[in-house]
Parts: sequence; C-alpha cells; structure tokens
Amino acid sequence: MVTSIGIVGLGLIGGSLARRAAARGYEVLAWNHTPRPYEAARRDGIQCVETLEGLAQARPELLILCNPLKAMPSILARLAPAIDPEATTLSDVGSVKGMVREQVSQAGLSGCYVGAHPMAGNEHSGFEASDPALYDGALWAVTIDAETEYRRFLAVARFITNGLGNELIVLDDATHDRAAALISHMPHAVATAMINELCASPERNIAAALAAGSWRDMTRVALTDPNRTRAMIDEDRANVEVLLRNMAARLLAFANDLHCADDLHSTDDLQHDDGLHDDAEATIAEFFSAGQSFRDFKAQTAQGAQALRGVQAAQGAALVARTGSTENENQRQGDTLDIDPACWQSELLESAKQGERIARFLDDHRVAIRRQPII
Amino acid sequence: MVTSIGIVGLGLIGGSLARRAAARGYEVLAWNHTPRPYEAARRDGIQCVETLEGLAQARPELLILCNPLKAMPSILARLAPAIDPEATTLSDVGSVKGMVREQVSQAGLSGCYVGAHPMAGNEHSGFEASDPALYDGALWAVTIDAETEYRRFLAVARFITNGLGNELIVLDDATHDRAAALISHMPHAVATAMINELCASPERNIAAALAAGSWRDMTRVALTDPNRTRAMIDEDRANVEVLLRNMAARLLAFANDLHCADDLHSTDDLQHDDGLHDDAEATIAEFFSAGQSFRDFKAQTAQGAQALRGVQAAQGAALVARTGSTENENQRQGDTLDIDPACWQSELLESAKQGERIARFLDDHRVAIRRQPII
Repeated sequence: MVTSIGIVGLGLIGGSLARRAAARGYEVLAWNHTPRPYEAARRDGIQCVETLEGLAQARPELLILCNPLKAMPSILARLAPAIDPEATTLSDVGSVKGMVREQVSQAGLSGCYVGAHPMAGNEHSGFEASDPALYDGALWAVTIDAETEYRRFLAVARFITNGLGNELIVLDDATHDRAAALISHMPHAVATAMINELCASPERNIAAALAAGSWRDMTRVALTDPNRTRAMIDEDRANVEVLLRNMAARLLAFANDLHCADDLHSTDDLQHDDGLHDDAEATIAEFFSAGQSFRDFKAQTAQGAQALRGVQAAQGAALVARTGSTENENQRQGDTLDIDPACWQSELLESAKQGERIARFLDDHRVAIRRQPII
Repeated sequence: MVTSIGIVGLGLIGGSLARRAAARGYEVLAWNHTPRPYEAARRDGIQCVETLEGLAQARPELLILCNPLKAMPSILARLAPAIDPEATTLSDVGSVKGMVREQVSQAGLSGCYVGAHPMAGNEHSGFEASDPALYDGALWAVTIDAETEYRRFLAVARFITNGLGNELIVLDDATHDRAAALISHMPHAVATAMINELCASPERNIAAALAAGSWRDMTRVALTDPNRTRAMIDEDRANVEVLLRNMAARLLAFANDLHCADDLHSTDDLQHDDGLHDDAEATIAEFFSAGQSFRDFKAQTAQGAQALRGVQAAQGAALVARTGSTENENQRQGDTLDIDPACWQSELLESAKQGERIARFLDDHRVAIRRQPII
C-alpha cells in the first residue's frame, strides 16, 4: 500500500490533489516551479521540497506530474537521472495521454509509468484556488499499455479509489485521446466556428439580440481564453482533425438532404423526382433518430443518479456481490469483478467499454464496480 | 391607442400573452381549438369566444395568432371572410416570419398584417404552464415589409412596448429568418450531429463517461424532442442549409490547417514545406481570433447588464435625451429617436443593426431607445 506521494506542480489540479491526499493521511511531498504557494501548502500538511531533483530523490512511492503539459519534456529530463524507478511509480494528470507517454518514453522512464487523467477542474487556476473537494465525485481515466506492470497500476489505482475516494476507468492512450477529442476538443472547435460564423454575418448584432439559451450554451466554451483552447486542440490534433472531417461530412449531408427535400416541395409535380425526395426525407428522419440511444442514456443516467442518491441516503453505499442474476439489472447495484493477472489489461479495457467503473479495491485482484447505463 | 386584443390559441405563449395583456388593463378576447382552458382563462379576466369566426367578428383592434405554425393555413382560411381588415390589425408570434407572411398573403390578409416574434418561452406547454411573467424582459422582433402601413406597425409596436412593457427591434422577414437560423436552428442541427457522432463511435460509453460541462452544454438542445427540432428546421430550411454549408466549410478548412501544421511538425527538416506550414499556423491563429469581437461583446453585455441593474435600482430607469456627446457613450443611457414617416422602415431596420432597441413610444413618431454594445 502506497503511503507517500510526490506532487510536481501546486496549481489548481496539483494543489487540490496534494491537499486531498494530505487530508486523507498520506505523506505528501511537493515541488513547485516557484516557492510562492509553499507557506500555504505547509499549513495544509504538505512537505515542500526546494528542488525537483530533491523531490525525486526523496523516493516517494508515487510521483505525480501535475505541471502544465508544455513543461513536461524539460521536467522529465530533470527527473530522469534523479528518480529511482524501482522505488517510485511515475504518473501524471495530463489531459492527453499518448503525447505524455511518448515524452516519458523519450526520457527513458516508461518502465515505471502509469498515466492518469482526473475529470476535475474549473475556470480558476493556482494553489490559492485549490480545494480538496475539487475531486469530489471525479472520475479518473487510468491509462496503460501492454508493458504496464500490474503492481504499478495497482499502486496508482488503489490510491485513486481507496485513497482519494474516487472512481476510475482503465483505458489505452489512443482510446482516451479519441474520447477526449470527441467530447471536449472537437466541440471546442465547433463552438469557435459558430462564433466565427456569427461575427462574419452582416446581421451579427441582430442575431445576437435574438439569441437565447441554445446559442448561449453552445458557444459558452468559445468564450474562454482562445489560446488555451488552441493549445488543447493542438495537443490532440490528429484526433480532432478526424472528428472535424466527420462533423463537416454530417453537416454537409444534412444540408444536401434539406436541399433535395426543399426542391421537391416546390416541384412535387415532377414524378421522376419523387424517389430523390423520399430518400432525402428518409435520411432527414435518420439524422434526427440516430442519436436516440444517447437521449435514452441521458434520461436513464439522470434517473440513476436520482435513485443512487436515494439508495445511498437510505442504506449507505453498500456494495453487493456480483451474481449471474444481477448482471442485467440496473446500475444502482454495486458489483465485484475478479481481475485475471494473465489478461488484466484487456479485461479492464472491456469493462470500461461496458460502462463499468472501478469504485474500490477489495484486495489486490478484486474490485467493486459500479455500472452505468449503456449507449 | 389599442384597447382590445384578440388572441388565437391559449397555449404557453398565447396564454401568457393574454394574461399579461389582461393584467395590464386591455380588453382581451380569446379563442382556443378546444375550450379546455376557458374556465381558467375567464378567472384571469379573459373573454373566451366559442368560435374563431366569432373572435374575428368581435373586431378586436389587434388579433394575434398564437396557434402552432402548422395550423396557420387553415386558421387564416377561416379568418379571411370573418375579419374586418379596416378595424383589425393582424399579427402573430411565429418563430419564422417569411413563411407566415406568405400564408397571410395567400389568405388575402397581407394589407392588415404586421409580423411579430417574442423571444420568450420555456420547455413547457399549454395554458396551465402559462405565466404573464414569461414575457418579463422579453425582446420582440416586429417584422415589416415595404407595404406595411405605419398606423398598423404603431398599433402592434405600442402594444408591445407601452402596453406589455417589453422592448422590440424592427426587421424584415428575411433578416429575421436568417438571424434565427444562425442563433437557433443551425445550432440545433449541429448539436444533433454531435450526438450522432458520439453514437457512431465504438467508444461511445467511454466518451460519455469522460464528458463534462462542454459536452453537456453543447448537446443539451439535441436532447429535446427531435420531432420539434425537425419541424423548426424544416420551417427555415433554406437558411439552415446555407449556414450548415458555411459551418462544414469552416470545420473542413480548420481540419486541413491542423493537418498541414501537423505534417510539418514531423517533417520540419524539409525547407520547401515551411511556407505551407506557416500558412496553416497563420490560419489557425485566425480561426481562434476571428470571433474576438463576440467575446468582447459578451463581456460588455455582462458588464452592461450588471451596471443597468445598479442604475435602475439607484435612480429608476430614467431615460435621458439623445445628444451628440452621448452617441458613443455606453448602452446604459437611454436615448430617443425621431421616426421619419417618409423612410421609417429603413430607419428602424438600420437602428436594429446598430444594436438599438425600442423601449417605449413617447408619441406617435418619437421613441425611447436603449443601445446594446456592438459586435
């Protein structure tokens, strides 16, 4: 069981993590690129170290990189000669995983590395904005590859679940980065394109006057610092590129269908066009029904969350053992999963795809899971 | 001055409008396709009429169509022989204006018609959900064409401002429908395409697990009844088609720039590619800066709204006379505008494009306006 944690970078994410770990009884050591937050951090029980090399040489069992991604190569280069990879497992909280693993590998540290990405954050930054509660209810993605040692995965995953009280899913880097592009990086680009479209319109002031909730919600993320958005997309650009091409194709196909259906509204006396018209109407119908499983999922998740709160309030969050009969019941029941050491990577990746989350380690090879509805 | 109002359709929008008008001292008559809401409506001082023809024959000074758009042709056909166009000005609250004017024209009623569209509503429906406060702070678009008689515009516009206490902008149908497509109908299609993209991904459950605020906000409108969204887009399809093509082109161009910049990251030893790379970097920078005037506008509007609340609280919403020196000051100051009877249409359209809103009629040819920041 891990008892000592090293944190590189005491910003919003690293500071909140350090404070949460310290509050939960871990020995927490930290280094920051300036000593500015040290006085406040020490009051929270965090041992602040003067140099990055000194932090590595203190041999924490887990060393978690919470620095900005752009500082990653230089920090890894400084850590490489100082870290004891036998004693220390290296992790990070970066929002892209493939790029970080490549940088870790270039620094010769891939043998002791397990990636991680907590779904936590807000619009603030710096240790002064940090809060251990930032991680309340946060889901972590833990990223592994075929070379990842189970004992190192266990160190990171137990810390997240049993230590921090969070849930996690296990992913490979490519899956993580594609999923992040889909639900965050691509939407940021789409929102930016939408405000660009408005600004290019001669009627932009009228449009803005008529704008209501749909416009406000769909462009909110385009209002944040465009340099930050640009950096985020840049770090995951290959995945974003593919998704933007997909989205462009979807919008263009729908525009074509609207055009065909429109043409035929005005020329419905032309018998030979009816097939084209019917095709367009059918694909328009398909455009509006294709996402129904996501609508159902959202409705179920909302119900599930409500029910879960009710169950937890009434009975405490008791976890019941997985049996054949509960397999297809609902996500409110906790289940357990036995991890096979021979194929743990593929087993846990598949579990994530099935909407399961690891809630707690019961022993080294047995976890409590919580099931979400399936899309 | 208008004193009697006829309302066709006592749903959420029509019911709330009828109740607000009655509460503000108007004589309100109403007809609904079923008499179900009549008992409740009568308690709110609304005179309910048994037939649509009877409502028209009562000769209200304003007759406002608040029925669903799909019922418009049949309602107009029934009204045409019953209405007295000398006594009654016809209006509506439909969310598309070109289509309604065409239907009004086909019914032979264009001579007495002035279009209107209040920016009000919520996710509920029916008279039981109606609330006079639904119109609090609502902006109306009033739509006119070259044939619109000023006295009829005045009847509708005075009712909205001095009567209901709302602000308005004056638009032609095409401008209204293009603006509505830009800030509502096109975004609904984009949100739908985004959930379709998620559902088509083999990693949809993982993506949904990692989804946070940006995904939630950008897909919220895709969760509402897809048949309603489909009808809305269908009614404004020509404008939506153009905007979807524009958006597809923007996303594709950005994808191409990401691709070029990406290629060159990995082959930056090739001297002859540097120009292409620099071009891509420059257009990527342009992609993120093109919407800056909208970001500034939102920041100013937020400040303005905050300041306006402060000013109103401290001094009441006093409106000061327009002078040369206040022209470029800020939107918190109210101004007046003299309406020239010779060119009132173009004058009021231009005023809307400049971010001005009509707040109140001071006399038949003089209005108090409120200026918004300009994008």
